[in-house]
Amino acid sequence: MPQRIIIIGLGFGGFSAARAARGRDRNAEIIVLESRKEYDGFSPCGIPYAIEGEVPLGSLIHDYGLDKMRIQVKLGYEALGIDTDAKTVKVMGPEGGESLSYDSLIISAGSSPFVPPVSGADLQGVFVVSTPEDGRRISEAATSSKDAVVVGAGAIGLETAYALKKKGLNVTVVEMLDRPLPNSLDRDMAAILQDSMEYGGIKMLMGKRLEAINGPEKVKSVAVDGEQIPADMVIMSVGVRPSIKFLENSGIEIGRGIITDERMRTSAPDVYAVGDCVESFSLIDGSRGNCWLATAAHHQGSVAGINAAGGDAKYPGYLCTFVSRIGRLEVAATGYTADRAKSLGYEVVSGKAKGLDRPHWYPGAEEVSVKVIADKKDGRILGAQVAGANAGQRVNTFSALITAGATVERAEMLELSYSPPVSDVYDPVVTALEVCARKLRR
Amino acid sequence: MPQRIIIIGLGFGGFSAARAARGRDRNAEIIVLESRKEYDGFSPCGIPYAIEGEVPLGSLIHDYGLDKMRIQVKLGYEALGIDTDAKTVKVMGPEGGESLSYDSLIISAGSSPFVPPVSGADLQGVFVVSTPEDGRRISEAATSSKDAVVVGAGAIGLETAYALKKKGLNVTVVEMLDRPLPNSLDRDMAAILQDSMEYGGIKMLMGKRLEAINGPEKVKSVAVDGEQIPADMVIMSVGVRPSIKFLENSGIEIGRGIITDERMRTSAPDVYAVGDCVESFSLIDGSRGNCWLATAAHHQGSVAGINAAGGDAKYPGYLCTFVSRIGRLEVAATGYTADRAKSLGYEVVSGKAKGLDRPHWYPGAEEVSVKVIADKKDGRILGAQVAGANAGQRVNTFSALITAGATVERAEMLELSYSPPVSDVYDPVVTALEVCARKLRR
Repeated sequence: MPQRIIIIGLGFGGFSAARAARGRDRNAEIIVLESRKEYDGFSPCGIPYAIEGEVPLGSLIHDYGLDKMRIQVKLGYEALGIDTDAKTVKVMGPEGGESLSYDSLIISAGSSPFVPPVSGADLQGVFVVSTPEDGRRISEAATSSKDAVVVGAGAIGLETAYALKKKGLNVTVVEMLDRPLPNSLDRDMAAILQDSMEYGGIKMLMGKRLEAINGPEKVKSVAVDGEQIPADMVIMSVGVRPSIKFLENSGIEIGRGIITDERMRTSAPDVYAVGDCVESFSLIDGSRGNCWLATAAHHQGSVAGINAAGGDAKYPGYLCTFVSRIGRLEVAATGYTADRAKSLGYEVVSGKAKGLDRPHWYPGAEEVSVKVIADKKDGRILGAQVAGANAGQRVNTFSALITAGATVERAEMLELSYSPPVSDVYDPVVTALEVCARKLRR
Repeated sequence: MPQRIIIIGLGFGGFSAARAARGRDRNAEIIVLESRKEYDGFSPCGIPYAIEGEVPLGSLIHDYGLDKMRIQVKLGYEALGIDTDAKTVKVMGPEGGESLSYDSLIISAGSSPFVPPVSGADLQGVFVVSTPEDGRRISEAATSSKDAVVVGAGAIGLETAYALKKKGLNVTVVEMLDRPLPNSLDRDMAAILQDSMEYGGIKMLMGKRLEAINGPEKVKSVAVDGEQIPADMVIMSVGVRPSIKFLENSGIEIGRGIITDERMRTSAPDVYAVGDCVESFSLIDGSRGNCWLATAAHHQGSVAGINAAGGDAKYPGYLCTFVSRIGRLEVAATGYTADRAKSLGYEVVSGKAKGLDRPHWYPGAEEVSVKVIADKKDGRILGAQVAGANAGQRVNTFSALITAGATVERAEMLELSYSPPVSDVYDPVVTALEVCARKLRR
């Protein structure tokens, strides 16, 4: 009898898990349970760009066609609980409740936006940016609004702020920490982004706390550090929390998410977990935490899918390699910020460089700023941040270096490709490494 | 007394050497001898783009301002010979011949275009693409020409072919080997480039030999495998040779260029050499050869400059990381092609992927094809080739992996940055690694 693999949730992690399981076992019965009723999946990172008007909202919605791989997708099925002894999942489907047995289970339940317990958070005109439906509601509200306040200066918040600005609204971003993208950028690199946002006409209130949202019914203003800021719309984008309430009585160990090991196993036998709902570990040093990014979910899903189907794959850990295009500025980061590395006990050395993406004499040359962070002890590269042209691609180069365990010494003579229309001989990526190497030799 | 460091040649290698020497020794007397009379330096890789009309020719010419670093640049000084016992360079300058003594010498004499001994190679209308003056002559000739034949399908040849096509000429490229960019691309990847060139209206005669250029005075046609092809212009771009004739009686060991070690030392004491004029070695396995690229010259120059000034730097070897934008297509490569690796005795496994640079639903998504080559024995990545969007940046990621000695197994879960306007979760770079990893596990 073929084994049955059940996957809870059809996000990036669930999708990769299903494909990898099928790739490993041609005969397994693979069932994906997804609580959404309407469609297989969507691209959450596209929502701000749909609000901006770059893409139609409908294009974010996908039918994965998994039936072609003989993977059953059951839409409208919500997992209610797991019995890890009986190896069953209790689900509520369109035709009522039932219990499905599994040989292996992969939990890819995702996350939900966290809405802080602030007064007025339930008023009309307060939104989160999580589903295409949220995107539709925000776009609609934007047409009749004048003032928007975005709470939280993470990527989704900033991208949405820019989108609303482009739609003609007055936009204010409020962030409790002292800078935009505080988890990805150090203060110096965040300053480039903040300047760019402010230059684009967005008011940036950093290091400020949202105290209340004022109504009475529909939002009229928000209180930030005693100041009243007019607002017809409030976007709450302060982060996400794993969607794991249904595991409460399962006995599965929970930390900052479902605790997983390098094989994406949970504490329960034959139960794996991947994506936004898990606590995983850093590729750099194994330190535990979360990485709420699609690319991490994809790799974790592949690992869980292979293992659930009887293979043996290992997840190397995450770097949280990240990119965003906010207005005209592309920003990207990978690994630890200097701040984060220090908080983990590293003594760090960093190298910075600012330059052009092409020779100064080639038309269209754009600025790029690069920062690389290394462990002072052994010169190992711990992280990098890039703002400007092709920031994402440049950060990928650092992701490759970190993944391979490179030291700055090894990397400082990195041979990058050069041709005048696309790059310079002196790329800021290499210059930053050279600067860092010189500091390490001192 | 401060030491005297003499540098012969102010190309990328000489420039980096001068800067690095100054960085290491604030007091050294640093003299750069350059046979050109008119200007410090120029960007040879920009010439085809100047012919194309993307940049003015004059913008390729640079004054480096090295006097600000107290580096003496002597223009119009040609090195005639070296006495490695007396530690002197014999030069011919604007005021006659003289002999300059050195404590350390760095030879960065560059290369000259190789013109094969074919009949008619000296006719009017036959050009090489080496200096801004060549660029001017070609541009001028193009205005009154109808048919151009480019001999040699290396990067400069193909870029110039495209430039002339854009100027309205009928263009034919003749290449002795069976494909364009034969040193950088395997047959499968070269086919993408060839298709793109042919789609752009350029006739590609691959695997064909130029037999003669016919005049009588001005070129009228070329003979290729017995066929006569009309030509008002012939561009010779079959490669370069080290410019090292002046070393003939110096006793310095010459192989496929000046033989250098990992400190860029030649066989003579206190004599270093860098750039196009040297024989150096591959980063991958130390195998000896040439890498005629500015980025390699830059790193070699840094190493020689530091060592000449009393430091101790090591060159890790070259990968020949390369990119070109030919028409609309960007192509790039690093490390060994499968063909080259096999010829060196490797048993190779490759992974290929074709995809988009952004999600299919994001406007402007462009195709990218990626090929990665690995050593079957241990899975170490040996090379990569990319054609399409951001090929150069994508190849840089592979350059980083190879530089750090990564295996495909280590790299297959490479976490790249994702955001819809600039990248997809499933980047062909990662997919190619995944494909290669699966083949290696078989």
